[in-house]
Amino acid sequence: MRKSHHPRMLRDVARPAATTRRTPAVTGPGAPVRQNCPMPLDPKIAGRLKRDRDGLVPAVVQQHDTGEVLMLAWMDDEALHRTLTTGRATYWSRSRRSYWVKGETSGHVQWVKHVALDCDADTILLRVDQVGAACHTGDRTCFDADVLEVAP
Amino acid sequence: MRKSHHPRMLRDVARPAATTRRTPAVTGPGAPVRQNCPMPLDPKIAGRLKRDRDGLVPAVVQQHDTGEVLMLAWMDDEALHRTLTTGRATYWSRSRRSYWVKGETSGHVQWVKHVALDCDADTILLRVDQVGAACHTGDRTCFDADVLEVAP
Repeated sequence: MRKSHHPRMLRDVARPAATTRRTPAVTGPGAPVRQNCPMPLDPKIAGRLKRDRDGLVPAVVQQHDTGEVLMLAWMDDEALHRTLTTGRATYWSRSRRSYWVKGETSGHVQWVKHVALDCDADTILLRVDQVGAACHTGDRTCFDADVLEVAP
Repeated sequence: MRKSHHPRMLRDVARPAATTRRTPAVTGPGAPVRQNCPMPLDPKIAGRLKRDRDGLVPAVVQQHDTGEVLMLAWMDDEALHRTLTTGRATYWSRSRRSYWVKGETSGHVQWVKHVALDCDADTILLRVDQVGAACHTGDRTCFDADVLEVAP
């Protein structure tokens, strides 16, 4: 999960999707199936998505043109629905237990170009156009700073 | 997790690392800390790695030259240790509860070129040279077949 310790992100509040009514009682991982939501995730997608025991799926985020792997974040059905319908990458924060729209406060928005599930439907790949740095440290990607040595 | 339903992978048995003594009682997620193993994961890496409640970390796997995101798999400390010391991508299978060396039976080996942790040390990025198809379906990547529509 990204930005869990970044003060700015503590203000990165949920961004209600225009098409979805949100109430705390029926949203977020662990909530009951939202039968009454006007616009839930497409049932054909929801039916094949395989979530972990918290109702989440890892989302790998890649810069669409350079191929850089920018970060990994987590989505529930609602976050995926918002991402697909708004074109703005939206995740579930496991630490804050709320949705966050990437770049909402920092300006480092991710414009979504392409979304795919993997062959087991338990991982999501997002190809995005990343504005500025993807990482809260200011690095372009979250994988720039901590390289491990591999045996030759 | 890859290949959980692929018959060939049921025979993709653990590949003992030359430098590590493995006994069922002391390996795998949930096992006690392996104080007596001759060559555990470098303590400096183990000290900063953030694992999920099963002791696992997601590993994003990318083709080193083209930038294709090939798949996502899972590692515990031992899988990361084997990957770093052998240069062959080695994962923990959550369904089979055993280690698997990618390509051990299929020949679709991943030669590891570069490994990095992300800024929170809770995700691993592997850049590899993938021999043949990364996906058990025969597709080059696990993200080729199931594209989701994004709002324009």
